[in-house]
Amino acid sequence: MNTWGRLFRVSLLGESHGDGVAVLLDGVPAGLRLTVGDFAGDLRKRRGGLTGTTTRREADRPLLKSGVRAGRATGAPVLIWLDNKDVDSGGYGEFRRKPRPGHVDFTAGVKFGGFNDIRGGGHFSGRLTAALVAAGVVAKKMIAPAKIEARLLEAGGETGAVGISRAIQEAMAEGNSIGGIVECRVGGLPVGLGEPFFDSVESGLAHAAFAVPGVKGIEFGAGFRAARMRGSEYNDPIVDAKGTTATNHAGGINGGLTNGNELVFRAAIRPAASIGLPQRTVELPAGKRAEIRIRGRHDACIALRVPVILEASAAIVLADLMAIDGRIPKIWR
Amino acid sequence: MNTWGRLFRVSLLGESHGDGVAVLLDGVPAGLRLTVGDFAGDLRKRRGGLTGTTTRREADRPLLKSGVRAGRATGAPVLIWLDNKDVDSGGYGEFRRKPRPGHVDFTAGVKFGGFNDIRGGGHFSGRLTAALVAAGVVAKKMIAPAKIEARLLEAGGETGAVGISRAIQEAMAEGNSIGGIVECRVGGLPVGLGEPFFDSVESGLAHAAFAVPGVKGIEFGAGFRAARMRGSEYNDPIVDAKGTTATNHAGGINGGLTNGNELVFRAAIRPAASIGLPQRTVELPAGKRAEIRIRGRHDACIALRVPVILEASAAIVLADLMAIDGRIPKIWR
Amino acid sequence: MNTWGRLFRVSLLGESHGDGVAVLLDGVPAGLRLTVGDFAGDLRKRRGGLTGTTTRREADRPLLKSGVRAGRATGAPVLIWLDNKDVDSGGYGEFRRKPRPGHVDFTAGVKFGGFNDIRGGGHFSGRLTAALVAAGVVAKKMIAPAKIEARLLEAGGETGAVGISRAIQEAMAEGNSIGGIVECRVGGLPVGLGEPFFDSVESGLAHAAFAVPGVKGIEFGAGFRAARMRGSEYNDPIVDAKGTTATNHAGGINGGLTNGNELVFRAAIRPAASIGLPQRTVELPAGKRAEIRIRGRHDACIALRVPVILEASAAIVLADLMAIDGRIPKIWR
Amino acid sequence: MNTWGRLFRVSLLGESHGDGVAVLLDGVPAGLRLTVGDFAGDLRKRRGGLTGTTTRREADRPLLKSGVRAGRATGAPVLIWLDNKDVDSGGYGEFRRKPRPGHVDFTAGVKFGGFNDIRGGGHFSGRLTAALVAAGVVAKKMIAPAKIEARLLEAGGETGAVGISRAIQEAMAEGNSIGGIVECRVGGLPVGLGEPFFDSVESGLAHAAFAVPGVKGIEFGAGFRAARMRGSEYNDPIVDAKGTTATNHAGGINGGLTNGNELVFRAAIRPAASIGLPQRTVELPAGKRAEIRIRGRHDACIALRVPVILEASAAIVLADLMAIDGRIPKIWR
Repeated sequence: MNTWGRLFRVSLLGESHGDGVAVLLDGVPAGLRLTVGDFAGDLRKRRGGLTGTTTRREADRPLLKSGVRAGRATGAPVLIWLDNKDVDSGGYGEFRRKPRPGHVDFTAGVKFGGFNDIRGGGHFSGRLTAALVAAGVVAKKMIAPAKIEARLLEAGGETGAVGISRAIQEAMAEGNSIGGIVECRVGGLPVGLGEPFFDSVESGLAHAAFAVPGVKGIEFGAGFRAARMRGSEYNDPIVDAKGTTATNHAGGINGGLTNGNELVFRAAIRPAASIGLPQRTVELPAGKRAEIRIRGRHDACIALRVPVILEASAAIVLADLMAIDGRIPKIWR
Repeated sequence: MNTWGRLFRVSLLGESHGDGVAVLLDGVPAGLRLTVGDFAGDLRKRRGGLTGTTTRREADRPLLKSGVRAGRATGAPVLIWLDNKDVDSGGYGEFRRKPRPGHVDFTAGVKFGGFNDIRGGGHFSGRLTAALVAAGVVAKKMIAPAKIEARLLEAGGETGAVGISRAIQEAMAEGNSIGGIVECRVGGLPVGLGEPFFDSVESGLAHAAFAVPGVKGIEFGAGFRAARMRGSEYNDPIVDAKGTTATNHAGGINGGLTNGNELVFRAAIRPAASIGLPQRTVELPAGKRAEIRIRGRHDACIALRVPVILEASAAIVLADLMAIDGRIPKIWR
Repeated sequence: MNTWGRLFRVSLLGESHGDGVAVLLDGVPAGLRLTVGDFAGDLRKRRGGLTGTTTRREADRPLLKSGVRAGRATGAPVLIWLDNKDVDSGGYGEFRRKPRPGHVDFTAGVKFGGFNDIRGGGHFSGRLTAALVAAGVVAKKMIAPAKIEARLLEAGGETGAVGISRAIQEAMAEGNSIGGIVECRVGGLPVGLGEPFFDSVESGLAHAAFAVPGVKGIEFGAGFRAARMRGSEYNDPIVDAKGTTATNHAGGINGGLTNGNELVFRAAIRPAASIGLPQRTVELPAGKRAEIRIRGRHDACIALRVPVILEASAAIVLADLMAIDGRIPKIWR
Repeated sequence: MNTWGRLFRVSLLGESHGDGVAVLLDGVPAGLRLTVGDFAGDLRKRRGGLTGTTTRREADRPLLKSGVRAGRATGAPVLIWLDNKDVDSGGYGEFRRKPRPGHVDFTAGVKFGGFNDIRGGGHFSGRLTAALVAAGVVAKKMIAPAKIEARLLEAGGETGAVGISRAIQEAMAEGNSIGGIVECRVGGLPVGLGEPFFDSVESGLAHAAFAVPGVKGIEFGAGFRAARMRGSEYNDPIVDAKGTTATNHAGGINGGLTNGNELVFRAAIRPAASIGLPQRTVELPAGKRAEIRIRGRHDACIALRVPVILEASAAIVLADLMAIDGRIPKIWR
């Protein structure tokens, strides 16, 4: 089920090369201001447009097909639709026979008996993240003044703008791709969001983060570094009655609940699966070894585009948790 | 909500120093063989008993209070109850006033207005993982012949038994604690479990893994290492018609779906929050700086006990996904 | 949340006088044949077009916006969209000030702080049932060969075609409306659908039936008549090993589970709220008594259109229960 | 799944002749006062003890096994357990071979492959309603000052105490059973609970009402009578700014939302399935016609005990809807 949330519910739909992609939002407070223009900034960030991202260019002008009237949410389900226009569907048929390594060709083909739309990845496409980003725009409004900011920490092993740029250029030159790490920080959250065990804040944020294609790891606060720390070093000393801590190894979460400090997590992004170099695969159904070479428009570094997507995934989780905690008004004046 | 799952639903309940802890399972197939003895092995593993784990000793003899008759599941909800016996609740009152760093004292106190049971961590206690392990025993039966195995990869930065043992001894000697990394592998899964985006296999497994106290990071396959790999290196070449890959950087998952290869993930475990050393905190409500020293029975290295708990968290997720995929019979003869 | 279902999930969206109405379906089996033509019959039945139904005329040509390719479901979420064209939104502003008796004007106005779209009832409109009927078309395919048929039993207290026709004419002549009773029968169901208590078959069917505007009562089998029967009369004697019963007072359900006999239920439909006669209401916000007279195109007897809608509501519930019971293949060849 | 609710979640478990029955409640506000004594009144009402109800006598002293400390809910899941003591399990084996008409013997036997606990109806037993009533006690506290009251309107076709008593005596004398009608009224609800379509107030209340064994029909306000009314008669005139209506044919609900007037519904209760008279059934597996005669302790009129159970079913639905609407504080001082 392509749905997340209990009181703020987000459902993704659509395909890369079909009519469009969309998100259905249930639980948007009545009166929340929503106009097409609100989405432009985040959708632009997601598109990239930088060196290293696909040359596919979609206008990404969202249509608010339901649940909005006169610039305000009505309280009814909101459908945000993004048309697909710059579609080039040639050449995908081959991938049913010769599944691309690192792609969903093989697994989705088996799962859906070959009926899945394979063009551009179909419903599995990164294109769906445009709809996720649109959901994030709404969620960010709901959780304000809490504020989410994600940024690319490193790519291709480089941590500075110059190094990252050079790494991308090199990868492009060799028809290759590189991965990266994105960090997300949320300030201004109240104490006590989340629930013990299955609805812990980490559980929710990780759940949604792994919905973002390419994410292969997530860590909160000190994360994997915590495995090598001693308790005396890791434990964040509490310094005031609001629960402020001197350090933030816990990433703003204790016992699955927000502790009022900055929430911090990082996600590891694998290199894009589509590369121009020849790759080993098999030819189905017999399974004879074969080689495949992927042509077309692709990202050399999807991590470049992930920050705003990860912001969106975090925003929808936090909006739901804040709604559950009774912190989001039902009517916005 | 302390519940996970759609067709196989797991709800945790109970407190560390209350009557007991328990798990309610809905969706256990009728006819599945279940006896008290089935739980002994995994519950023993969780208890530890090794140097470096708490000296609290519970018999952990589960009571099958409903849904089981004559050694078989009846198809009705199964309640597995574990009594608390070896309880020592002295001294917790202090922690309401002086919240322990790294603990849930402060966050839960705010969230529940001070009505939460603070003794031994109450409902947030690691003791609840005994109930989770019990759920895992049932789930493992449901997904057989798929097989889950987790092990401690490192602790205190050490990767060998001798080094780990020494690191634990050192930590204990100084009244400190250490973290670790646990790896979990699942063999024998079918191709195609999971759904795109929000119900990806990674989303589910991460969600449940972060329900385990102490987990601060998770990575699948190459995980954070993938961020520094090139696509040509990361992509796993497909070598036969069953989808077998030459390498397994994806950890057995493509596009959120199992690909038929071994599923592999690792979790980072922070050091136990309870240490014997003096720590900085505040005295509530005023927030005056204070020092706290925690006495009592505690783990020097909770990571030692995590493997079987992580197996359980993975098992319940996979049992649900397999049930959704129609792969678990409703009646077991 | 405007959503129903666990494995086959149905979400309604849209407004009466907005861009359109739609339904999002998750869990449609890959390979299921779906074309625009499949929807024509049931949508035509819902539109009515008979004397006694509104003169609003929509083409109701559904757009399969996602999840379908080459006449087959792909396994991804299916969005079925119906444009609104024949819209006449004049005069609704008055109803915010003077809420119409029997309508949602007052309750929705309070709930959504006046931000709800009031034109034509907005998201609460009977127009949404076109989307529900579209969902029913898909669900009926999924549960075949089980077969659902609903019919109008009585309207305006009359039980024959001639009497009903005359009652409608009379109501129209006086600017009034009449109610009716619809009966729904389902043949060919397996034994054992449903769950004890909260997921009983009656619970699910009633839940969805009350989602149909105008339904104010539901009864299964002998229903309210059962309240006056003796056990010796009510109990259906079992006559063969398949569980066939000599009578069917239980309506095909025992203990919340289907028993293999015909499933039978009836719904009571209130008269349409919109009538041409003057009615008493108040003028908000002061609450001064006022009179209102509703102009426009309305149904004299909405019960005429309910049968196919009730079929749809039953079909989506049964499709979900059959999916949960493992009776619907994941892939349709 | 034997679970109801989104923010206030109720899960029933247990068997008639097993260790006991219980309910697990998630979402009980921290600080809510809860003691064993709170349950006595409603549980006593459910037990009956009047002529016409079973002679099984359970103490029904609830054990608050988790989530409660010092007379207050802690915010953690609350398990309320009721031991079974007065159990007489003889003679049920016969019913696997010769399923009792009107009982779940046949349907549950098929569904669970014969592994279901058949003693006393197992998990399908009316005994589970004791746990439901316990949940209702908690829910009633949560929705106060809104107040729920149900009463027996008629039984055996009689509407007065003397007539009902005589009808019961007659039924008992002949080894028979009778049905009845129960009416439930809720005062003090706010305007706007519920959601359009699938989460309408009627949908929720009907869903939970049909979880009560024996309920075969439900109607709101004028209900089935509405089918024979004209709009001019049915529509409730609004008489003040709070939405008060002159009549209440809608039963306090418009467009699926509470309208601030008294909420009114009635449920039809079939006669108890267990009667002392000989009944026709078959002998499995061959299906040869057979006769069965049920001995043991049974209710001549289960409708006598339904009022408090229906109150409970309504209370848990309304508590959830009020929580969703943000009307129930998270912490009770």
